[in-house]
Amino acid sequence: MEVFGDNSCSPPCNTLGFLQKNNSLDEKGRLAGQKNLLSCDNSDRDARFRLTETDFSNLFARDLLPAKNGEEATIQFLLELVDILTNYIKKTFDRSTKVLDFHHPHQLLEGMEGFNLELSDQPESLEQILVDCRDTLKYGVRTGHPRFFNQLSSGLDIIGLAGEWLTSTANTNMFTYEIAPVFVLMEQLTLKKMIEMVGWPSGEGDGIFSPGGAISNMYSVMIARYKYYPEVKTKGMSAAPRLVLFTSEHSHYSIKKAGAALGFGSENVILLSTDERGRVIPADLEAKILEAKQKGYVPLFVNATAGSTVYGAFDPINEIADICEKYNLWLHVDGAWGGGLLMSRKHRHKLSGVERANSVTWNPHKMMGVPLQCSAILVREKGILAGCNSMCAGYLFQPDKQYDVTYDTGDKAIQCGRHVDIFKFWLMWKAKGTIGFEQHIDKCLDLSQYLYNKIKNREGYQMVFDGEPQHTNVCFWYIPPSLRGMPEGEERREKLHKVAPKIKAMMMESGTTMVGYQPQGNKVNFFRMVVSNLAVTQSDIDFLIDEIERMGVDL
Amino acid sequence: MEVFGDNSCSPPCNTLGFLQKNNSLDEKGRLAGQKNLLSCDNSDRDARFRLTETDFSNLFARDLLPAKNGEEATIQFLLELVDILTNYIKKTFDRSTKVLDFHHPHQLLEGMEGFNLELSDQPESLEQILVDCRDTLKYGVRTGHPRFFNQLSSGLDIIGLAGEWLTSTANTNMFTYEIAPVFVLMEQLTLKKMIEMVGWPSGEGDGIFSPGGAISNMYSVMIARYKYYPEVKTKGMSAAPRLVLFTSEHSHYSIKKAGAALGFGSENVILLSTDERGRVIPADLEAKILEAKQKGYVPLFVNATAGSTVYGAFDPINEIADICEKYNLWLHVDGAWGGGLLMSRKHRHKLSGVERANSVTWNPHKMMGVPLQCSAILVREKGILAGCNSMCAGYLFQPDKQYDVTYDTGDKAIQCGRHVDIFKFWLMWKAKGTIGFEQHIDKCLDLSQYLYNKIKNREGYQMVFDGEPQHTNVCFWYIPPSLRGMPEGEERREKLHKVAPKIKAMMMESGTTMVGYQPQGNKVNFFRMVVSNLAVTQSDIDFLIDEIERMGVDL
Repeated sequence: MEVFGDNSCSPPCNTLGFLQKNNSLDEKGRLAGQKNLLSCDNSDRDARFRLTETDFSNLFARDLLPAKNGEEATIQFLLELVDILTNYIKKTFDRSTKVLDFHHPHQLLEGMEGFNLELSDQPESLEQILVDCRDTLKYGVRTGHPRFFNQLSSGLDIIGLAGEWLTSTANTNMFTYEIAPVFVLMEQLTLKKMIEMVGWPSGEGDGIFSPGGAISNMYSVMIARYKYYPEVKTKGMSAAPRLVLFTSEHSHYSIKKAGAALGFGSENVILLSTDERGRVIPADLEAKILEAKQKGYVPLFVNATAGSTVYGAFDPINEIADICEKYNLWLHVDGAWGGGLLMSRKHRHKLSGVERANSVTWNPHKMMGVPLQCSAILVREKGILAGCNSMCAGYLFQPDKQYDVTYDTGDKAIQCGRHVDIFKFWLMWKAKGTIGFEQHIDKCLDLSQYLYNKIKNREGYQMVFDGEPQHTNVCFWYIPPSLRGMPEGEERREKLHKVAPKIKAMMMESGTTMVGYQPQGNKVNFFRMVVSNLAVTQSDIDFLIDEIERMGVDL
Repeated sequence: MEVFGDNSCSPPCNTLGFLQKNNSLDEKGRLAGQKNLLSCDNSDRDARFRLTETDFSNLFARDLLPAKNGEEATIQFLLELVDILTNYIKKTFDRSTKVLDFHHPHQLLEGMEGFNLELSDQPESLEQILVDCRDTLKYGVRTGHPRFFNQLSSGLDIIGLAGEWLTSTANTNMFTYEIAPVFVLMEQLTLKKMIEMVGWPSGEGDGIFSPGGAISNMYSVMIARYKYYPEVKTKGMSAAPRLVLFTSEHSHYSIKKAGAALGFGSENVILLSTDERGRVIPADLEAKILEAKQKGYVPLFVNATAGSTVYGAFDPINEIADICEKYNLWLHVDGAWGGGLLMSRKHRHKLSGVERANSVTWNPHKMMGVPLQCSAILVREKGILAGCNSMCAGYLFQPDKQYDVTYDTGDKAIQCGRHVDIFKFWLMWKAKGTIGFEQHIDKCLDLSQYLYNKIKNREGYQMVFDGEPQHTNVCFWYIPPSLRGMPEGEERREKLHKVAPKIKAMMMESGTTMVGYQPQGNKVNFFRMVVSNLAVTQSDIDFLIDEIERMGVDL
């Protein structure tokens, strides 16, 4: 036992007291009226406390609960872990921290400073486990960092994180009310709110949370097929004519993946032409429907993208809906990325017509900052989700339970067990309110506007398409000075194609920021900037541009 | 500011010190050699610390990071949450705590003691959010409780939980090495170990973690189809003959679901007869293959179950493999539930022949106690997973990255974004070693043996099938005294059918324990006991039997 007295404490305070409540307080079950038990007191040395050493080098997993007398070791181990995590969190929001500390796969596999990824027969001590946790974070990528722009999902929402910690502590499964009563109801109520925002008549509809947008989109294709050809469920695709699906050439590849997986064939997913901004041209849809019909194919399904992955384009849903109605086709709106804009009074018009869709994918884990994974498939017609997927497994969905078994949602899913993805989202909605999500979205879109205005006429930049961004996507080429005078042509194209990858590699090596790039159609590699993290400010946008110029100036 | 001095502290100590390390220590990045900073000191009042109040009623989500000066509120909020969670964990392992506090859906929807599930436009205070967290746990089900036997997944592994907390803090996505370098490598190394345990020649093989066993099984059917009819990927099911799949009538319903979803049709999933123990009769497989061929169908795929959901039966893999080889069929082993037995030298013989399978589903989140979700699909042939699923999305899987892009695993998946399910499992494996999983499995199987021995000749019990359990499943009827003298017949059947649901309802109302029941074929409702939680002891088994008798005696 020793007094730990040499840690300095300066504002913001880094000495915290963490105290278990005594049981009687704890039993109250509700916080209201309780004294808060966390403290930060710099003014008085007595506020620090005496500490004994816990030697984790002699403790093992087997010493934790449910081991006899394992309570103390369990709590201390978890608190030590939380200490690692809270330090990570603080640093993630600190711009002096690197976004990543890049290493090649072979370097990590060889073992960085003793960080050994190999598994063995014998247990490691809890000390080593805590070291492994620290190293795992150290060599990872800080996706919550205000200068991480690499993916549509970014940020680290503290409420969402709290929700995830609770979810994993509850460690249950969504398939029945029996073992997830609260979560099942939260899912139902949250889906109802989302459906209201989509705007289906009288708030009717159904839905389920799935493990990501690709699976949600797969659901939409399955349900469409079940609606028009229910016998496919039992008899297979041979019971249907040659069905075709339509989606934009700019749409997410998951529609094609679904076509391949579900037995349509990827060639029967017909790609629609887009305008210069990446939006579907409705006339092209109609032409391709007619062409397919002429060939003897049967059009089934149209996907309209609300917020495309690269351009952030919103397909004209109303015009597409007119055509779907005319030809009696299923209309799906893939709002995995853009669905969040429904929460914003300023921007929801971009999804105008979504209330005419038969199904909608909407990933709160993208634009709304909910931790991964959180994706919903919403369906206008009640009952069809269960009709499509139910297999009525007797061992799970017993009809003779004592409660209303219509709350057992498992048979609506293509999964059996289903992770609890709802709680973090529900908790964030409670904590932020609808207006909180609205502010989040409006702020991110404002930042994109800021970036667009900053670079649209700036020397050395060329926009991939003209006009203000519809979503937070801003697509641009950085033209290094060496290429600025060069005439258009193959040589310039080849050189420009290599600029973004080179800058990206430098960014990753230096660890200062991360942004995505890709080619698109006949366009050579360009940067795709996106903002979905509430931590981003204008200065971070400025920083990105400075970094691109610093790294690209001599290319 | 006030001194908080009225909490009693008795062994096991419930007063804990939690101290942020100062930054210089923190920067070391490795624990070795550091003094541990957590303490529990009951011997001295000075060891307690002074606390200031944090009034969460005036704090909102917007006051947390990334808010300016939000660090302190963030840490305190998270610690308060951790306090709630660690109390929940302690009680989960305390047998005097109820497994659940049952309420009907309408009761929870009406709002229990102010627990309001509805979402609104305006934000709630952090105080309310913490109350909501507490209530969510209060009205949930303690799946980690030593008397929760309701599902194949149970228990609350502390290392696994720590892994989940870290995973959600890292909040990243498995699709590229770029943003999940450490996790991608952990997945690769862990899959390699699992493949070694399956025993494919020279340790070759491939695999991926998926969102549950149903999706893993779906993968197996997709890959089998791609192996024999690769053109289905592009041209659809019309490019293949009428394919049929075979699986046991006792197998998991996900094979049928996959058949329906992927366009085979559920009727083309042919169910195989089983022996009295629920194991496939190989001769029936061969007969049905021949019958299908005679009808002009083309057999494609056979699923052998290693650990069936209800009986815990292991199909005879070697005999099935002989037939698959003879007729050139894909052999999948669904070891979602039984795969864990591969870790046990004593029990792995039950999967004898698994090394002849083309693919294997194995859910560490079931028998191995890994938190939900954690399921792997393993595939013998390298490259076929990517061949089957790749769509080569340019915006995600750029070929011109600076690192070896073969580590970008996303295009092997039917998902796009993919949750990090590997870390908790990897961390548990590190912490327990292979021998730790072996001990876990052996212990759970010993407990089932104990239950079987206890009730096989006990008055009032009837086993659903004879013989020792192959897995931890023990299936039995409890016969209340009123039915014991009754002759076999429809009346007794009808009455017996109602016994398990009634007892189960009483269990849930009283909250003392939970165990599953279901009918199977022509067998009326019976209890299915399973053990997968390391916290279970013989006394918990005794308790279950006492409860069944206490509740059932007057039925």
